[in-house]
This record gives sequence, C-alpha cells and structure tokens, in this order.
Amino acid sequence: MVKRNKKEIILGIDPGFGKTGFGVIENSSGEWKLVACGCIETEINDPFVERLVELHLELLKVIKKYKPTRVSVEDLFFARNVTTAIKVGQARGVILLTVAQLKIPVEEYTPLQVKQAITGYGRAEKGQIQRMIQMQFRLKKKITPDDAADAVAVALTCAASLNLKRRLKNNVVK
Amino acid sequence: MVKRNKKEIILGIDPGFGKTGFGVIENSSGEWKLVACGCIETEINDPFVERLVELHLELLKVIKKYKPTRVSVEDLFFARNVTTAIKVGQARGVILLTVAQLKIPVEEYTPLQVKQAITGYGRAEKGQIQRMIQMQFRLKKKITPDDAADAVAVALTCAASLNLKRRLKNNVVK
Repeated sequence: MVKRNKKEIILGIDPGFGKTGFGVIENSSGEWKLVACGCIETEINDPFVERLVELHLELLKVIKKYKPTRVSVEDLFFARNVTTAIKVGQARGVILLTVAQLKIPVEEYTPLQVKQAITGYGRAEKGQIQRMIQMQFRLKKKITPDDAADAVAVALTCAASLNLKRRLKNNVVK
Repeated sequence: MVKRNKKEIILGIDPGFGKTGFGVIENSSGEWKLVACGCIETEINDPFVERLVELHLELLKVIKKYKPTRVSVEDLFFARNVTTAIKVGQARGVILLTVAQLKIPVEEYTPLQVKQAITGYGRAEKGQIQRMIQMQFRLKKKITPDDAADAVAVALTCAASLNLKRRLKNNVVK
C-alpha cells in the first residue's frame, strides 16, 4: 500500500554574510508549491558580532512564520578568497546552529548536486536554474535577487531527493 | 580618586573546527592569574552539523563553569585554503553566537595584535609566545597543546587592553 505523504515544508537557504537567500516550498496534494522567498540582509555598519546575531534573529522569524519541517542548506566549496570564505563560513555556522537548536532536520547539498537536481546538468549556469524554477512554479517573472532563487533551488533539490527516497521506499513496500 | 576594579574573568578562545582552544584568566588583587585552559574537541566521525552542536554545548559548559565576564576571540585572517577557511569560519560563527546569546561582551583580536600585546613584536613565533605566557604565570612547563596556549594569549591580550583603558580613564579622572 502506498501511504499518503505527510505535509512537508522545506526551507532552502543560500548562506551569505551580507545577504542570505531563503526560499520556502510546500507539498500539498502531491505537488510542490512556492510559498515565499527573499533575502535576509544585515546592517553593513553594525559591528561584526551584531550582524551575526541579526542573521540569527531574522532567520528565527522566517522559521517561526513558515514552520519548515526540514531545512536544506547549500554547502560551500567556493569563495573568492580566504577572507570571504571565513566570513561566509561564520554566517553558515550561525545558520546551522540556529536550525539545530530548534531540532529541525537539516540537509546539505553541494552546488553540483543542486544544478544536477534542477537542470540535470552539473555545470548549468545561473540563468538555466532560474528558467527551470520559473517553469516548475509557472512564474511570470524570474525570482530576484539571485540569492533568493538559489535558495529556492536548494529547497527543490531537497524535495527531489525526498520524492526519490519515497518512491524507492514505496516500491520496496509494495 | 582611583576606583577599585571589579573582578574580571576573561575567557580567551582560539577557534578551530576539530580543536578549539580555551583559556581562562582572572584578575584578583590587581594581578592576572591563570585559572584553566584546554581544548574542546569534537567527534571526528560525527556528521558536520552535530559537530557544530557539540562545540556549542561544550563551550556552554566551559562558560557555565568559569563564568567569564568577557570573552576574547582570535580573529581569523589566515587558513591553508578556502575549504579550511569555511570550516573554521563555521566554528567561529557558532562560538560567537553562543557567547552573544548569553549577552557576554565579546572582544576580537587579530593574531598581529596578540603577538604585539604578548611579546611586543608583531612577527613573534609560537615559541616566544609560549615563553612569555610561562613567565607571566610562573609556570614550570609550557602549556600544551598550542591551541590552549594561543587561547590564553588571546585572553591576556584582552587583559592588557583592559588594563590600558583603565589607566587612561583613571589618569583623566585624577
């Protein structure tokens, strides 16, 4: 017997220091729908530690509002240089701790996995990902800024992986 | 009138992913004393997010035990490569958020500032810092591992900066 899937809400996150993209998708009646997306920005003139706390508090607001059952965070492998890498790393540490403190399951996907899941091609460009997201959710315009679109892509990657796991499980159960 | 300084307990932290050094110093009767130092290590076989949570929980234990009035964290500017930088950055993000959530004031010092404060020379080597710490606290042996010694050095840098600020303030008040 194929069981009905419980409602899943996935929060995708594209970690950044100045700007962190987020995208919320939800599966209702077997189809994934785009609920919300946007960016968390921190005050450029605030001291460094305060900006990390702002990111933490803003992320908490997003989580309280959309109540995700799962969080999908982009894994970082690339940065312009070591200084940027350390900054973005700190933001990612804050994001992961915030989610872990709320005991919400976290999944991590590399940029390669995201590109493959969305376009079927690991070296896809940003424009291709944008177009696939637009088609998937039948959007009239592309999502802006890019950070928000990237976050939606990370959420969709998690959704694709969940769908696959369920199909495999259901086939085994049958 | 020169006011008596209130008791200060400084927790110095040398952030790392596998190993985070910590050192606690306290000023009693006008002199800084070494209270404790050591390393927080996370389980190498645990998933990445769990290791960040372990670091958070272990750091909380250290803070609850020694009740620092101030935390001094080494600023990162150097890493072997971008991948290491991102990992250490995430650990530093977790450390800063943990301290900020407890509303303990945080100070940040670059390796250059630490070297200058401890040895008077910005390009000092690890061995020189170790010897200065040994002399300062009249220790028979050098502190091991290096991460713990580095953390004590970061705490001492914060102490030196506090002493200087107080002297300046007292001179102005006189």
